[in-house]
Amino acid sequence: MTTGLDLTVTEVRLTPVLVADPPLLNTQGVHQPYTPRLIVEVVTAGGITGYGETYGDTKYLEPARPLAGKLIGRQVTDLNGLFALDVAVDASRVRDAVDVGGLRGVQTADKLRLSVLSAFEVACLDALGKALGLPVHALLGGKVRDTVEYSAYLFYKWGAHPEGVAGEKDDWGAALDPAGVVEQARRFTERHGFTSFKLKGGVFPPDEEIAAVRALAAAFPGHPLRLDPNGAWSVETSVRVARELGDVLEYLEDPVLGTPAMAEVAARTGVPLATNMCVTTFAEIKEAFTRGAVQVVLSDHHYWGGLRNTQHLATLCAAFGVGVSMHSNTHLGISLAAMTHVASTVPNLHHACDSHYPWQSEDVLTERLTFDGGRVAVGDAPGLGVELDRDRLAFLHRRWAEDDGRLRDRDDEAAMRVAEPGWVTPAAPRW
Amino acid sequence: MTTGLDLTVTEVRLTPVLVADPPLLNTQGVHQPYTPRLIVEVVTAGGITGYGETYGDTKYLEPARPLAGKLIGRQVTDLNGLFALDVAVDASRVRDAVDVGGLRGVQTADKLRLSVLSAFEVACLDALGKALGLPVHALLGGKVRDTVEYSAYLFYKWGAHPEGVAGEKDDWGAALDPAGVVEQARRFTERHGFTSFKLKGGVFPPDEEIAAVRALAAAFPGHPLRLDPNGAWSVETSVRVARELGDVLEYLEDPVLGTPAMAEVAARTGVPLATNMCVTTFAEIKEAFTRGAVQVVLSDHHYWGGLRNTQHLATLCAAFGVGVSMHSNTHLGISLAAMTHVASTVPNLHHACDSHYPWQSEDVLTERLTFDGGRVAVGDAPGLGVELDRDRLAFLHRRWAEDDGRLRDRDDEAAMRVAEPGWVTPAAPRW
Repeated sequence: MTTGLDLTVTEVRLTPVLVADPPLLNTQGVHQPYTPRLIVEVVTAGGITGYGETYGDTKYLEPARPLAGKLIGRQVTDLNGLFALDVAVDASRVRDAVDVGGLRGVQTADKLRLSVLSAFEVACLDALGKALGLPVHALLGGKVRDTVEYSAYLFYKWGAHPEGVAGEKDDWGAALDPAGVVEQARRFTERHGFTSFKLKGGVFPPDEEIAAVRALAAAFPGHPLRLDPNGAWSVETSVRVARELGDVLEYLEDPVLGTPAMAEVAARTGVPLATNMCVTTFAEIKEAFTRGAVQVVLSDHHYWGGLRNTQHLATLCAAFGVGVSMHSNTHLGISLAAMTHVASTVPNLHHACDSHYPWQSEDVLTERLTFDGGRVAVGDAPGLGVELDRDRLAFLHRRWAEDDGRLRDRDDEAAMRVAEPGWVTPAAPRW
Repeated sequence: MTTGLDLTVTEVRLTPVLVADPPLLNTQGVHQPYTPRLIVEVVTAGGITGYGETYGDTKYLEPARPLAGKLIGRQVTDLNGLFALDVAVDASRVRDAVDVGGLRGVQTADKLRLSVLSAFEVACLDALGKALGLPVHALLGGKVRDTVEYSAYLFYKWGAHPEGVAGEKDDWGAALDPAGVVEQARRFTERHGFTSFKLKGGVFPPDEEIAAVRALAAAFPGHPLRLDPNGAWSVETSVRVARELGDVLEYLEDPVLGTPAMAEVAARTGVPLATNMCVTTFAEIKEAFTRGAVQVVLSDHHYWGGLRNTQHLATLCAAFGVGVSMHSNTHLGISLAAMTHVASTVPNLHHACDSHYPWQSEDVLTERLTFDGGRVAVGDAPGLGVELDRDRLAFLHRRWAEDDGRLRDRDDEAAMRVAEPGWVTPAAPRW
């Protein structure tokens, strides 16, 4: 074969990094000043390098290392086989409780396994696309749209990380009341052109968050709005909020925890419920869909197991009349490119996707992806169409290597204790 | 780009053919002496030709012709876009009744549309694979097995087509009682090495078919057995047969018509129910799976809309704990290759697939596919790994062109009337 077309994996590089994260608030606490991500590079015998990205906490890093070794000698086309590989997940790292910080639903060994594998799948697809001269979307059956719409991801936010804590400065300012939220939303529209808005809630008493959404509705009349308290509410509170905001909400996201409670809220209100906590694995779908607990699944290619599983999920949702959109955790440009490629191939994607990317001032790319009118263009360059900046990668990796270990595992609760000693995540439902 | 890598479609050729079919019996009547198939060829600017195959009746041919024109100028990678194309289906051809001959469940305009599109999808995948030097399975995420198991598809059968009717002779002889069925099964094992057996039932009163399955169980102890009366039975009859054969059946296939009746049979027996009639589209899944009406879906890439939809379906089945295998109508080697490629990529394929291929003495390939130990090897040659025999294609097309129109639309009921004047398909349930 010609150079570039020997698709055998000859090397896999794993680079954990710490990237700056602003002091964004959620029901568990506050984002740490730096958050861990793992950059995966898959190199083929033909000299092609593919990029992937996933969570970088220790529990992801540990199984990623032996998995990297198992890829050597395999073909980058062998994606179904990749997901059949044994991934050594440390069960003690999985607490069968709602995941910290990520707020990605209940932690399970299988979800952890898929979250690791997905970065390797994306890296293989990127390498394959580059080797063949095809964009990743073409490897997924081709794009059905030329741009993918994202929503402005609004957060209650402090002006800066607590005193005495390292961290990069950000220019977003504080947002701790309706006026602050509206101001943040305006900045999002000015900078990136977003036209739909999601507010991360579960931080303040529901009436304050209702007021914030009302203020957004007044400032941006007719624009799609979402509120996501990450399961912090009771069924009764959820029903009340749904009724009070029903006229302005595109959907209410994870107001309560668990399928039975979500089903009850859904049955008692006409507001669609979206989720990235109730349905986060294929195993959770049957009960939730049968009971009508969710109307929109927010997929996340990291924990659903890659771009092809995201497509499977979308088809499944279509068959059950359930909508589909996309969830986001703190992530870098590799994952935004991956999200954009797969989102461009999903016919039934009818809601703007979430992305934390505007909050990330740091990246590992030579050129950041940009939002134009709230949309990311779907590129036709080979692979994901992004290039690693090795100096930046090395810089962010050094930060990880030099960390004393406290920031290598994201812990929003611990970060909150710096400002509020004795803080523990309130038991759900908090309100 | 180098030759072979300009993936723009420059020509699409459609060739309807009539291929010999033995006098196989089913609940609607008997197979015609010749059955129509449509061969699709997609040619790229790079000079690559990809092959696809689907049903060849007039109602498929009509929408295929304008669709062929719409492909010109498109990329063979653009498969999601392909399925978004408007396909002009003649609604008057769709009767919202159980499809003739094919016994593919209720006819709908959408199923007809997908049945046409699927041949173009397969042809595009074949062309893409050839252009890239990759087997089709690699374009589908890679094979997870090196061979795909098929079952022996046993039919009640006359020794020859009725006197005065054209048709090729076959050497299988008649099979009209338990001894004949067992003899046919022995020949299947001798010729192809099959180790599981499906009997197409609904032809004789249930007690005769029970006796045939018992005879198979005695002749092939421990081998997986299936019985498929194509919905000819009542719920009571189905429950009785399930109870009488429960100890030897791998599954019972479509004993009754419709989700409510299937659900009742499933609830009253412990025998898994398989289907290619109750669930044949994504739209039918929700009710059937919610009600537990089916335990195994027999996918068919022709009417489910191609190889990638088959993978979506398999993932959906896995999420609901429903098994998956593969249905077959009369088909040629292009479709057997396509079935084999996609089947090799489905992790949760736990039952041998059906195939009529051993009944087809004629093909359009330079080299027929073969069963070894009942299995077809999954090739690694580019594309589907099959080559058209243009002389054979022309010969079989001439048969179609010279037909007076009677055989261009499969009609097992009309074929039966040649032997039994006045025959009409008995109303279901027949027994």
